[in-house]
Amino acid sequence: MTDNATRDIEELIGMMARLPGLGPRSARRAVLHLIKKRALLMMPLAEAMQQVAATARECLACGNIGTSDICDICSSEKRATGEICVVEDVADLWAMERGASFRGRYHVLGGTLSALDAIGPEELRIPKLLDRVRAEGVTEVILALNATVDGQTTAHYIAEQLEGTGVSVTSLAQGVPIGGELDYLDDGTITAALKARKRF
Amino acid sequence: MTDNATRDIEELIGMMARLPGLGPRSARRAVLHLIKKRALLMMPLAEAMQQVAATARECLACGNIGTSDICDICSSEKRATGEICVVEDVADLWAMERGASFRGRYHVLGGTLSALDAIGPEELRIPKLLDRVRAEGVTEVILALNATVDGQTTAHYIAEQLEGTGVSVTSLAQGVPIGGELDYLDDGTITAALKARKRF
Ligand SMILES: [Zn+2]
Ligand SMILES: [Zn+2]
Repeated sequence: MTDNATRDIEELIGMMARLPGLGPRSARRAVLHLIKKRALLMMPLAEAMQQVAATARECLACGNIGTSDICDICSSEKRATGEICVVEDVADLWAMERGASFRGRYHVLGGTLSALDAIGPEELRIPKLLDRVRAEGVTEVILALNATVDGQTTAHYIAEQLEGTGVSVTSLAQGVPIGGELDYLDDGTITAALKARKRF
Repeated sequence: MTDNATRDIEELIGMMARLPGLGPRSARRAVLHLIKKRALLMMPLAEAMQQVAATARECLACGNIGTSDICDICSSEKRATGEICVVEDVADLWAMERGASFRGRYHVLGGTLSALDAIGPEELRIPKLLDRVRAEGVTEVILALNATVDGQTTAHYIAEQLEGTGVSVTSLAQGVPIGGELDYLDDGTITAALKARKRF
């Protein structure tokens, strides 16, 4: 493969290598795999991408991804429980929905506060969250942020902003994951699980 | 994200998860990344895929991927050196070309002989290789197969088939990679490098 034949394929490899989790080597493997399965996988994948690229948009209320200005969760009356679960990212919202135990609505921040990356409240959907709390009759805000330093800084900031609104602010319990082996957990998790220990 | 909004996105995630090196979790991350960059990355990527899917084909002579029936390497007179480098896969051909020191032509087998997977010579491009050796005035066949059991079985099989044709059959030198730390190499490599040791 040289000259003009290469150009298109190398361009494709370059784009694939920009996806998170893929480097140049795995992008090359992926593109070769696609070329081998061009009718069965590559063409349908290209079409699915175009379809999603053309229709996907962020929900104006919560930041979830859907195909309309207001996502299915925000427009469902069944989910107007007065509970808002705050997550960093749409991937976290998907993870919560796979759990299928939360029946309220979400608010996707789009990241965490970070002094290092100069990300303040205005760069996230924090002002919008405060608006929603006032406007939607919210009774509980569940902070489901990652147990990282930035995640917890963000959680504390939001909790502070909600002080005096009368809204109950909670966060996910920390502890040993189901099936988790202590040996594989970091010390912080074990310490937190010990502090939050319950009568057996 | 639920109901109809989900379907397209989940279908896309499912397709992405079929790429080598991506699992369901990394496919979800990749799709979210694409949706965030839908104008700058997702649309161009979909178009590049369609372009390559529509034009890419295997060279009828060597199995390389290009955009015509005979690839640029096979049709270049400059590369008619009488040397054919036999590789397992197009990815290996690309790796050799990045090295930019081989000036002959290639022959892509499309795999290795494997009793376990019932892959015999007819499933690979071995008969075609023997045809080319007779037809193209080949003087040397360089076996650049992987240093795996199947790769070496295949190399020995091809060498056997070429016995008596007067063609010189060689293989890549085995040894310590440049910059390689002994500590990270498997024992076989060290043994082979020791056996092939040269005066310093
Ligand atoms: Zn929404
Ligand atoms: Zn060719």
